Amino acid sequence: MSSPRELAAILFDLDGTLYTAEGPIPGAVEAIRILRASGLAVRFVTNTTTRSRRALADRLRRMGFTAAPEEIYSPPWAAGRFLRSRQARAYLLVPEGAREDFEGVPFDDQRPDYVVIGDLGEGWTFERLNRAFRLILEQGAGLIGLGRTRYWRAADGLRLDVGPFVAALEEATGRKALILGKPDPAFFRMVLEDLGEPPERMAMVGDDIEIDVGGAQAVGMRGILVRTGKFRPADLDGPIRPDAVLSSVAELPAWLG
Amino acid sequence: MSSPRELAAILFDLDGTLYTAEGPIPGAVEAIRILRASGLAVRFVTNTTTRSRRALADRLRRMGFTAAPEEIYSPPWAAGRFLRSRQARAYLLVPEGAREDFEGVPFDDQRPDYVVIGDLGEGWTFERLNRAFRLILEQGAGLIGLGRTRYWRAADGLRLDVGPFVAALEEATGRKALILGKPDPAFFRMVLEDLGEPPERMAMVGDDIEIDVGGAQAVGMRGILVRTGKFRPADLDGPIRPDAVLSSVAELPAWLG
Repeated sequence: MSSPRELAAILFDLDGTLYTAEGPIPGAVEAIRILRASGLAVRFVTNTTTRSRRALADRLRRMGFTAAPEEIYSPPWAAGRFLRSRQARAYLLVPEGAREDFEGVPFDDQRPDYVVIGDLGEGWTFERLNRAFRLILEQGAGLIGLGRTRYWRAADGLRLDVGPFVAALEEATGRKALILGKPDPAFFRMVLEDLGEPPERMAMVGDDIEIDVGGAQAVGMRGILVRTGKFRPADLDGPIRPDAVLSSVAELPAWLG
Repeated sequence: MSSPRELAAILFDLDGTLYTAEGPIPGAVEAIRILRASGLAVRFVTNTTTRSRRALADRLRRMGFTAAPEEIYSPPWAAGRFLRSRQARAYLLVPEGAREDFEGVPFDDQRPDYVVIGDLGEGWTFERLNRAFRLILEQGAGLIGLGRTRYWRAADGLRLDVGPFVAALEEATGRKALILGKPDPAFFRMVLEDLGEPPERMAMVGDDIEIDVGGAQAVGMRGILVRTGKFRPADLDGPIRPDAVLSSVAELPAWLG
């Protein structure tokens, strides 16, 4: 493996890695500034499906980070890009906040090429799920899942994310979904393609050993684990070996040397 | 294998085997009468989760069949029996029509021992599915599925049945559901236990080669396929070999000899 000095780009997970509900991880804003100044490309890779790239960039900027919408890779970005490149029509069951990443994709609830599902929360109804099911089974539409996250922790407790609804439609139709989110290789390959760099020149930094570190390593990138966010010491007892384990993202400039 | 003359009980699937939307299969009412007169025990085994045993027996009687509620085995029956035998508390997400089969089971939406799900149709909401999810993941409740049927054909088109919602909760929680419905062996064993006869003295008659014939054979019962209902000639090209294939249930008395 190449030395850290040969890296061209660093990809950062967002929640738990650059910030938490309390605000930025101490030293994170400065770390990103230092890396950019050193000439490294900085990108952000998140499984969030409820906000557009623009809204995510705005949020990072409000916390003090430098970030442009084009630097953010998310499931809605990947799905929008995938659909536009195929000039495909889609039935979108995605959160309102992510819709702008699908600009240019014709909406079609009768004969779409793809059904795209995200974390709809209370927006899920039997009628919507059943319509998606019929479009896939009877019209032959493909199924795209904006990631396969099982659940997340909201203020009032755990909430189902997109994964269980992907599973429901897979079970009903007997077809496999295309998952465009971490840790799926199809998603990481789209990021690589967009950056135009070989995987060995990229590192992914995140707090999830499976989704961030394992996902990145599976396509040949380096995977760096931070001990913030959802990190638990037991994460290091599993089969995935991070290329580095850092106290937090603030240590990254020193580690890169 | 024993000869048909050594059978003690015959189990009949309902829809597609004894009747269709047009009414009883020609000769079916007479066939059941003849079998009963010959001293055989007649029972009914269905995956319907929207009606109680009593409602199903009423329906059979309106079509001319002799049938008592206690002769009907269905997923709500199996789940009610399972829960009562364990004095278990349950969070029931089951169709209104099936509720009476759960008589004597304490309802509990805070700390139930089991979550039971059936074909709720438009009754499904995100809130209900999320509550089931939390009770399983956070409170450790078990998950019982009233069968695992993927979908069914309603007047207005295909509709999701219980199976996809079982799959959603399994994906979300990482736990496996107990499936109480055909073709699950746990369900057929409950039928055997209730009848108190060894499996080699029982035959299951149905129009579904996997669910009726395969399910029965998997627990040592005989499986007889009828060429009515959903039967398709290609069913006979698969791995399951019925013990007999009859034009319809009307042929059964002659076949039994």
